[in-house]
Amino acid sequence: MNITEALHWRYATKRMNGQKVAQEKVERILEAARLAPSSYGLQPYSILVVEDEALREAIKPVAFNQPQITESSHLLVFAAWDPVHDGHVDEFIQLTAEERGVGLAELEGYESAIKGTVNGFASAEDKFHWAAKQAYLSLGAALAAAATEQVDASPMEGFDATGLDELLKLGERNLRSVVLMALGYRDAENDRMAGLKKVRWPKEKLFIRMQ
Amino acid sequence: MNITEALHWRYATKRMNGQKVAQEKVERILEAARLAPSSYGLQPYSILVVEDEALREAIKPVAFNQPQITESSHLLVFAAWDPVHDGHVDEFIQLTAEERGVGLAELEGYESAIKGTVNGFASAEDKFHWAAKQAYLSLGAALAAAATEQVDASPMEGFDATGLDELLKLGERNLRSVVLMALGYRDAENDRMAGLKKVRWPKEKLFIRMQ
Repeated sequence: MNITEALHWRYATKRMNGQKVAQEKVERILEAARLAPSSYGLQPYSILVVEDEALREAIKPVAFNQPQITESSHLLVFAAWDPVHDGHVDEFIQLTAEERGVGLAELEGYESAIKGTVNGFASAEDKFHWAAKQAYLSLGAALAAAATEQVDASPMEGFDATGLDELLKLGERNLRSVVLMALGYRDAENDRMAGLKKVRWPKEKLFIRMQ
Repeated sequence: MNITEALHWRYATKRMNGQKVAQEKVERILEAARLAPSSYGLQPYSILVVEDEALREAIKPVAFNQPQITESSHLLVFAAWDPVHDGHVDEFIQLTAEERGVGLAELEGYESAIKGTVNGFASAEDKFHWAAKQAYLSLGAALAAAATEQVDASPMEGFDATGLDELLKLGERNLRSVVLMALGYRDAENDRMAGLKKVRWPKEKLFIRMQ
């Protein structure tokens, strides 16, 4: 199934049937999230992969009791680094040097460009939004990958981020939750969204062609 | 080529060879961007598709003279609605009613939920960031689609958004540019990025497993 067909097939699955997603499929979806591009390649986020049922039960109330939190197989929590700081950049430059077999001196320009961006935001909140956007880009790749795997997914902004951060102790890891993605299989009988026609802006509205 | 292979193949292409991307490939990439999910399905953004060479020449200086602006085949400008307002929601609810063949009354709860979100942000800037994040999600799907089409792409935050908005008169359309994506074909000989190993955080760092 190509991406277009897969994106037509998928929908924001609100009710799932509890069936487990095979580990190799989960890993391929995660790999798409990991391979997604980001600003400078920094990937300023972590992705919590919550399979534990008791923990998903505990998360449910801070996500407005949405049933897919517990009916899913895995819940992904995209969490941006907060704050992104020079130490993160140093670690990334170190990784880049190792992976590419080059010296740190060769990467000085790259390093200072990233640090210039990281330290150049008007506010901490602007920096957080920048990191969060990179997580959304990764989410986009992960959603496309899930659809091509015929795994249902529900991307979710509807949760109390502060409550979730406290529950998962994300502050201790300098992380802040941004968006969720539940993975599983649709319960088509009980999901009133399952049969609904997908609504998207028509091409002539969404695209402004400048030929 | 599946998504994982495609995401391995792709890289942020800085030099392109000017070759045109076939229109049907462009349309499939745009369709992935269009089908991407967004908060409430609202898709609070437009995508400018700039093929015109003179216009790309004009854009180049506000994008730090990056060569892929003009060496690409098409330049996509993801621009968020600014500000998202009740009128947008009304239009979306109208479209939903038409597409699904339901009455507006049935969609009242949905409408008020969206308006609650749209009008509930602490600041205009927070609302803009929310809309921009939806555009990044769409960008993620478009990048995955481009890679599976074996079309090179360069996602770009490196541009003067205010300058680009003025040049393209985006303010008149209540749009604000968020991120760019150049589509084309790599000039591997002249692109020093072409041969470099992809650097990503290892799984054990990026993912926090809670099993």
